[in-house]
Amino acid sequence: MKSIQPFKEKKDTAILLIHCPDRQGILATVTEFLNRNHGNIIYLDQHVDHQETVFYMRVEWELDGFLIPREKIGEYFDTLIALPMQMTWKLYFSEEIPRMALFVSQMPHCLFDILSRYTAGEWDVEIPLIISNHKLLEPVAKRFEIPFHYFPVNRENKAEQEARELELLKEHRINFIVLARYMQILSQDFVAHYPNRIINIHHSFLPAFAGAKPYHAAHERGVKIIGATSHYVTSDLDAGPIIEQDVTRCSHVDTVENLIRKGRDLEKIVLSQAVYKHLQRKILVFRNRTVVFN
Amino acid sequence: MKSIQPFKEKKDTAILLIHCPDRQGILATVTEFLNRNHGNIIYLDQHVDHQETVFYMRVEWELDGFLIPREKIGEYFDTLIALPMQMTWKLYFSEEIPRMALFVSQMPHCLFDILSRYTAGEWDVEIPLIISNHKLLEPVAKRFEIPFHYFPVNRENKAEQEARELELLKEHRINFIVLARYMQILSQDFVAHYPNRIINIHHSFLPAFAGAKPYHAAHERGVKIIGATSHYVTSDLDAGPIIEQDVTRCSHVDTVENLIRKGRDLEKIVLSQAVYKHLQRKILVFRNRTVVFN
Amino acid sequence: MKSIQPFKEKKDTAILLIHCPDRQGILATVTEFLNRNHGNIIYLDQHVDHQETVFYMRVEWELDGFLIPREKIGEYFDTLIALPMQMTWKLYFSEEIPRMALFVSQMPHCLFDILSRYTAGEWDVEIPLIISNHKLLEPVAKRFEIPFHYFPVNRENKAEQEARELELLKEHRINFIVLARYMQILSQDFVAHYPNRIINIHHSFLPAFAGAKPYHAAHERGVKIIGATSHYVTSDLDAGPIIEQDVTRCSHVDTVENLIRKGRDLEKIVLSQAVYKHLQRKILVFRNRTVVFN
Amino acid sequence: MKSIQPFKEKKDTAILLIHCPDRQGILATVTEFLNRNHGNIIYLDQHVDHQETVFYMRVEWELDGFLIPREKIGEYFDTLIALPMQMTWKLYFSEEIPRMALFVSQMPHCLFDILSRYTAGEWDVEIPLIISNHKLLEPVAKRFEIPFHYFPVNRENKAEQEARELELLKEHRINFIVLARYMQILSQDFVAHYPNRIINIHHSFLPAFAGAKPYHAAHERGVKIIGATSHYVTSDLDAGPIIEQDVTRCSHVDTVENLIRKGRDLEKIVLSQAVYKHLQRKILVFRNRTVVFN
Repeated sequence: MKSIQPFKEKKDTAILLIHCPDRQGILATVTEFLNRNHGNIIYLDQHVDHQETVFYMRVEWELDGFLIPREKIGEYFDTLIALPMQMTWKLYFSEEIPRMALFVSQMPHCLFDILSRYTAGEWDVEIPLIISNHKLLEPVAKRFEIPFHYFPVNRENKAEQEARELELLKEHRINFIVLARYMQILSQDFVAHYPNRIINIHHSFLPAFAGAKPYHAAHERGVKIIGATSHYVTSDLDAGPIIEQDVTRCSHVDTVENLIRKGRDLEKIVLSQAVYKHLQRKILVFRNRTVVFN
Repeated sequence: MKSIQPFKEKKDTAILLIHCPDRQGILATVTEFLNRNHGNIIYLDQHVDHQETVFYMRVEWELDGFLIPREKIGEYFDTLIALPMQMTWKLYFSEEIPRMALFVSQMPHCLFDILSRYTAGEWDVEIPLIISNHKLLEPVAKRFEIPFHYFPVNRENKAEQEARELELLKEHRINFIVLARYMQILSQDFVAHYPNRIINIHHSFLPAFAGAKPYHAAHERGVKIIGATSHYVTSDLDAGPIIEQDVTRCSHVDTVENLIRKGRDLEKIVLSQAVYKHLQRKILVFRNRTVVFN
Repeated sequence: MKSIQPFKEKKDTAILLIHCPDRQGILATVTEFLNRNHGNIIYLDQHVDHQETVFYMRVEWELDGFLIPREKIGEYFDTLIALPMQMTWKLYFSEEIPRMALFVSQMPHCLFDILSRYTAGEWDVEIPLIISNHKLLEPVAKRFEIPFHYFPVNRENKAEQEARELELLKEHRINFIVLARYMQILSQDFVAHYPNRIINIHHSFLPAFAGAKPYHAAHERGVKIIGATSHYVTSDLDAGPIIEQDVTRCSHVDTVENLIRKGRDLEKIVLSQAVYKHLQRKILVFRNRTVVFN
Repeated sequence: MKSIQPFKEKKDTAILLIHCPDRQGILATVTEFLNRNHGNIIYLDQHVDHQETVFYMRVEWELDGFLIPREKIGEYFDTLIALPMQMTWKLYFSEEIPRMALFVSQMPHCLFDILSRYTAGEWDVEIPLIISNHKLLEPVAKRFEIPFHYFPVNRENKAEQEARELELLKEHRINFIVLARYMQILSQDFVAHYPNRIINIHHSFLPAFAGAKPYHAAHERGVKIIGATSHYVTSDLDAGPIIEQDVTRCSHVDTVENLIRKGRDLEKIVLSQAVYKHLQRKILVFRNRTVVFN
């Protein structure tokens, strides 16, 4: 289904995400580099973690009028700025639309929310395919005209199926993966292909109730607030860098079914907020924690 | 689009919503009436407003085994209980699936959210039609296979168009209307046909920023929190009984566009929560305020 | 320090907290018992847990005009209602002001909040004494004119000191204990003297980050929301029935010190809300979970 | 009452708050100025409002080792940086402890909260005096050993009393005023003496329910969320720049008295958070809106 509203025309910009050991003058050096080369900065946010003495920065500037050609920016920045300052950096261009794969199982609420935003033109993203270990949601994919690939996974065929999935992802030049309530643990090998590029939604306020059936556990424990957590997937289950969390109140009148119902709304919003931040290139990961720029 | 998951089998129940002047023994009288006639109560909530001395109650019981035949319950209750106690009451049966009409204009997020829940089988509702004063969202309706009716409205044809809409609603035996960001004020006459049965979403924390362009007004005022409000429509614009409200934080970094983006998530959730409560027959209106049972 | 505002005159009432196996007619039976004996009900809330088939109820009625004398109510209710219906129940009278002991260590914010409310006349409570394992907060106690008892506790003298504390509590006819950031684990034996009558505040969103240094753990994990939890103390550390929880947002810019600062506001409010509910006799504990009436 | 805990030793720093028309190179110029003069930056946050094309910045650096002497910093900065760039700026030094006056009437909860934080050493502030138009809270001031000044105000003596208050404030070199539920409108003339230096707490979610009796109005309107707003006082009642807001849920079961009780907790926290931000010199006012740095 085509977007029902045209994307707003957007500026042609470059985005740098940087982190490095903190020291005097980093900010001045980077901004001076951009200014000198006629880069009009339209966004800048930085943060210093004084305990770890790490400097974090996101800066975005217009390419129109910038003296360094697009394809040389990385090289020049690396040579002139990043190497002397021991920076780790990533460079993105606004004209490159990220390509996302959706993994789903049987619960449709996150899938619907993502496809609705995609169709409504809320996000600047391509979704070339949906992968699922169940057939149940194929009709949803069809309605939104996204190709649906069915990969039933069991203990025996898991390695083989993941290999086929990886091939498919490669073929479609997928940049990142969103697990929209995908109820199948990905192997460490699979995860290693997309480091900090697989976003999961866990249906609890992590680190509380990691693992299976968190709403049942929350009900059993008698908590007065339930939550949802979006995070990057690492080899350690439900322990990857947290991107976004949100909560809602519950009480003794809420059955497990009620918690599941209330939780659905949290899950879809928290997952979509994480995807949005990722698409905006506003997330930087360092030592299993995220810096999420404003 | 058919529901992708079958409705859960549900009990055959009756639901009473009651309010009356408070006095001793109402609760005992009602529950005793149900018990005596072998009505197994599965839900009961009541509230006394001691200032206004009004008693409110919602009670739901199983019809299986109930001694009074379904079609006689209203009559018996009225004669034996309601009249002596000056009760205002409404009786609903769980087997009657409410029929809802959706009114939309150009913004799709609330429409998508409602149709997604409908298709996912989250709600026990029929949506026989969508009415719009713009053609933009017709493709969305089509994808979800809901008939879409286009009624362009202007100052000259408003009365005539509303008359045609009312006829259509009657023809489809519509019980209640949801304005999913419908940007056209309904006439007092139209509203009078569906008293406390038209649910609107206003994109502010009412009563702050009633009227047009609330996000612009919120930005101008420099608030640190924005909100959304679902309410029943009355003849008084944005002043009907409030059903649900929710808020989210903002700050000086948020542009009007950001507020609009953040607000969309609030709007769709707050509207859908109001619809859910309405479908559950958990809302009672008294003197422009709602009692929303748990 | 005397209350700066006189207590509002309050009605002379009785309060019943009840739970029992659910079955038809409990509500009618109880309300009919009170009505028949001219008890004017001013509060009633009930809840049925259909999964566990347990009925919970809190009812409060005026003693003025009630036919059964105050000192006979318990006996009559037990014989006529509770025994036949296998009820577990507690009876309170509004004229009995609960007597609370405060346990503190070195952090003053919860202590200040509680003594401020006490002095402002927000709560209907007596605070005959403060117990501490440190001397630091003695000046605060003095300012508010509450006797301060210093019981330094170490591994060797713990049993002996707790015995002395228990004696002191008994002597002052203490009904319940509030641990206002008391940093010393109470022995199982001590806890057994006040079952569901010791309220603790834990500085995390339990069950996340139970145990020591939760803010450090939250920072390390990179959560985006921190919380506080008030609960009744059981022999199982930080695992007792949860009364109230609240949360606040944090981000990568928050140092551990910031989390501690933000957390203080959560802790004092969440603890005081739990104390308020306890004073109102609105909490009922069943199987390590609370029912907190509205 | 002396602080029960010593202030943490803090670094000797200078703080600049800046705003100016946005243009290329401001950030680089300011940071380069500090770096060149050996100013170790320990905090930097900036924001560009692209709609108004205004640049905002807060920067803090250590004075130890800074080449420009403390008393010359303002002059040098103004000449070399601010004038060429049309900056509006304020310079603060961490060693200057702000001096605050508290205005109260009859409600003690905000007063208690502020004095508790002050005594606990949470804030780096001096409170040389409390001013009130009622005598009720004098005992609280006494307990915390803060001089209490009683200025009964009526229509006839208002101008005269305000003149005496201003004299007293001047005498005590008061930097800013906190209205801790002070129920008396200050004259425009009085307010003009402390522009953006009088912090008020309004007991509603502004702009909803400005003026008197907001909880009554909120109850009457049937809102599902109540709030509190701290703001700088301007000549326009309840319309000054908003600093902080917070909200809490309510429902049909809440009486006006309940809203007032719940609101107290909001009010005291929201007011104290605003005072904290003000003390941190993290608030910048521009065109009746605040920039509140992280």
